[in-house]
Amino acid sequence: MSQAGAPLSSAVPQTRKVGILGGMGPAAGADFVRLFVQACTEQLRRRGAAVVDQAFPEHWLAQIPAPDRTSAIAAPERPEISPLDAMSHAVQQLHSLDVRIVAIACNTAHYWHQPLQQRHSQVRILHIINETIAHLQQAGVREVLLMATQGTHRSRLYDSALEAAGIAVHTPLPHEREQVMQGIFEGVKRGRLDVANQYFGPVVQALRQRHAADTLVMACTEIPLALPQASQAQGLKLIDPAWVLAQALAAQAYV
Amino acid sequence: MSQAGAPLSSAVPQTRKVGILGGMGPAAGADFVRLFVQACTEQLRRRGAAVVDQAFPEHWLAQIPAPDRTSAIAAPERPEISPLDAMSHAVQQLHSLDVRIVAIACNTAHYWHQPLQQRHSQVRILHIINETIAHLQQAGVREVLLMATQGTHRSRLYDSALEAAGIAVHTPLPHEREQVMQGIFEGVKRGRLDVANQYFGPVVQALRQRHAADTLVMACTEIPLALPQASQAQGLKLIDPAWVLAQALAAQAYV
Repeated sequence: MSQAGAPLSSAVPQTRKVGILGGMGPAAGADFVRLFVQACTEQLRRRGAAVVDQAFPEHWLAQIPAPDRTSAIAAPERPEISPLDAMSHAVQQLHSLDVRIVAIACNTAHYWHQPLQQRHSQVRILHIINETIAHLQQAGVREVLLMATQGTHRSRLYDSALEAAGIAVHTPLPHEREQVMQGIFEGVKRGRLDVANQYFGPVVQALRQRHAADTLVMACTEIPLALPQASQAQGLKLIDPAWVLAQALAAQAYV
Repeated sequence: MSQAGAPLSSAVPQTRKVGILGGMGPAAGADFVRLFVQACTEQLRRRGAAVVDQAFPEHWLAQIPAPDRTSAIAAPERPEISPLDAMSHAVQQLHSLDVRIVAIACNTAHYWHQPLQQRHSQVRILHIINETIAHLQQAGVREVLLMATQGTHRSRLYDSALEAAGIAVHTPLPHEREQVMQGIFEGVKRGRLDVANQYFGPVVQALRQRHAADTLVMACTEIPLALPQASQAQGLKLIDPAWVLAQALAAQAYV
């Protein structure tokens, strides 16, 4: 096979096996693997290493049917509908495969990051919100629009961390949050991206009319599957926390 | 959450855990999960079941850094460069997770399907070529163009099965096969889909000039990531064996 282009390091870089906890929802989990492969490709290019199959870190994706995260956050008095046990079982199975670094391909699921990390002290579980904040700080962003699930909004997972980092955050109004949920559940989760944007688009428009921020954080892994195609999002800087997390996981996977 | 549309069966369908053996290459493995999720969505719609996260079968993707398949087929005297042991180890690990049905997200790797299946008699390993032939027969196709890796061409994996099924098959000339390999290795595997089509496009054009067949089998999981966008492929019926295999896996995953 001829190898065109710049001279490449012949050494295959050292890698660490990593895991991805997905299924929340499954389309977002699949897309996260795509993003991770893309992030690994960028790592290889940056290192001047050949982009060949054998240079990618071994990685495992667990797509598990976990209970709905937003419903569980809304009903803390019903621990039986929490996704924590399902997530914990998958992390334990990843651990049994010798995986020591895990990323969770779902923003809302990070509500359970702390108990999950406590249960599995031998596995490092990356944190999508911390990684996103670090990314925004590095880019000098001081003000963002935030679109997420009801569960993520209710938990203030992003809001608290953004405010602590000195970044102003503007969120949709209650009825707009409901529209975002409809876009996620009736659009993306059913494979209908145009339907999703019929819900997402007007919310973005309303946010832009109320606030001058030029950066929007798509804080649910389902939103970036549709929103970048919405006309109302054109001209905005769209931050995809899943892409930020995929890059962090790739950085961990190359020693 | 409001549920719009037709009345849906409230019962979550019974599912079986399934596995995907990927990494050959990693982009194709990631795309196979996307196809599998799409095939499951279609299964749910066909059954009148709600398309919710919890209705998807648990599935695991193993992206392993296996040795190059085409190189191994070209050098049967060098068993040390065969990907069989790496694939076998991954199937064994999938088995340890209670996976009993596996699909391999790589056409060329099916060269080792038989020894792999023999080593793991408790796991049913689907066969991408058998599934594709069944699909072509059902569609009444009698003649196809075939684009694949050098390894797949050399092994005659598809040619023999197509001929046995009474389907005429036309393959690229030796120098065109080399161009297809360059499209795969210098294009798709490096994340450069436009570069891939600079190699793939002229090969498709040459095949169409020589043969009247209106159906092209994209018999390498990397080819469908780029070829559908090539102008020279417009008007052809493109068969993606990965999509056929993903549908077969989804049919197995719903009991």
